[in-house]
Amino acid sequence: MPRWESDAQGRLERAALELFETQGFERTSVAQIARTAGLTERSFYRYFPDKREVLFADNELEAHLVAQVEAADPTLSPIEALLTALGTADEVFHPRDFLLRRIKVIAANPALAERDLIKLADIADALARALERRGVEPGKARFIIDVAIAISRRATSRWLAEPDTALSELVAQAAAELCETVTPPAPTVR
Amino acid sequence: MPRWESDAQGRLERAALELFETQGFERTSVAQIARTAGLTERSFYRYFPDKREVLFADNELEAHLVAQVEAADPTLSPIEALLTALGTADEVFHPRDFLLRRIKVIAANPALAERDLIKLADIADALARALERRGVEPGKARFIIDVAIAISRRATSRWLAEPDTALSELVAQAAAELCETVTPPAPTVR
Repeated sequence: MPRWESDAQGRLERAALELFETQGFERTSVAQIARTAGLTERSFYRYFPDKREVLFADNELEAHLVAQVEAADPTLSPIEALLTALGTADEVFHPRDFLLRRIKVIAANPALAERDLIKLADIADALARALERRGVEPGKARFIIDVAIAISRRATSRWLAEPDTALSELVAQAAAELCETVTPPAPTVR
Repeated sequence: MPRWESDAQGRLERAALELFETQGFERTSVAQIARTAGLTERSFYRYFPDKREVLFADNELEAHLVAQVEAADPTLSPIEALLTALGTADEVFHPRDFLLRRIKVIAANPALAERDLIKLADIADALARALERRGVEPGKARFIIDVAIAISRRATSRWLAEPDTALSELVAQAAAELCETVTPPAPTVR
C-alpha cells in the first residue's frame, strides 16, 4: 500500500504504535511520536488532537460503511445491506499486521480500550442512522446494528487469524453460525 | 447491608439524578448531591468514588447475571443459559421510572454515555468468563455474549415501554425476532 506507506499520518500512526508497544502508552509523549516519525509536534497536531487519538484516526471506516449501506441495492433487507457493507471493511482496513499489533496495544491500556468502545459506538450510531434513512424504524435499526456488529466482530477476529479467507465469506459464515447458536437443536423424535 | 446504609445510597442516587436533570451533570457538585440527600460529602464518598459513578453503582446487576449463568442447568446451551439469566435482570433493576429518567440523563451527557459503554463492556467481559467456565471456547463465548446483549437491549427497551409484559417474555420474543431478521425470507416459488 504505497500511499499509506508514504504519508505523514501513516508515519505518525506507525511511530505511535511502535512506541506504545515498546515503552507503553503512558510513557510515550507526542514529541517522541513526532520525532520518531521524522516530523514536528506541530505536524502531529495537524492530524490528531492528542496521543489517545493516534490509533483511532480511521474515520475512513465509518464513512466507507455508511456509504456502502447507502449505496446498497434497495431490494436487500436491512441486515443484508449491513452485512454486505461490513464484508467490504477490509478495503479500508490498515494492513493486517498493523491491526493485530494495534489490538494488543489497545487491550493493554484502559484509556485506549475506552476510546475503542466509544469509536465503535460512534460507528454503530452512524450505521443506525443510515438504516433509518432506508426506512427502518429506530428501535429495529438499533437491534439490527447490534446483531450485525456481533457478526462482524466474530468474522473480523477470524479474518485476522485466517489470512486466506475473504472477509465477506467469514461474515456470511458468522451470520449462518448466529442462527444455529440461537436456535436450540430440534428435540429428538422418539 | 443494613437497611439504613442501602437507603443512604439510594437517597444519593435519587438526589444526583434529580440534580443532573434539573441543572445538568456539569453544574452539579458532590456537595450539592450530598446536601440534597440530607447527608455529608464524606458519606457520599463512602458509596461512590466521584459524581460520574453515582448512576453506575449497580454492581449488583453484574454479580446477579454472573451468578445466574453459573447456576444455570448444565443441559442448557450457552445462549439459553445467558438469555435465561438476562430475562431475570428485572429482579435487580431500579424502579422503571428511575431507569427511564437515568437513560435520558446519560444520553444527554457524553461523560456519562462513555461510562455507560464501559460498564456494559465490563458486564460483557464478566459474562464471557462465566461462559468460558462452562467450557465455551473464548472466541465463541464472546460471539454469544455479543448476540445475547443485542437481544437483551432490544428486550429491555421494550420492557421499559411496555410495563405489562415480563422481561423474560420479551427476551424470548427478541431471540425469535433475531433469527427472522438474519434469515432472508424464502424465495417465492413460481
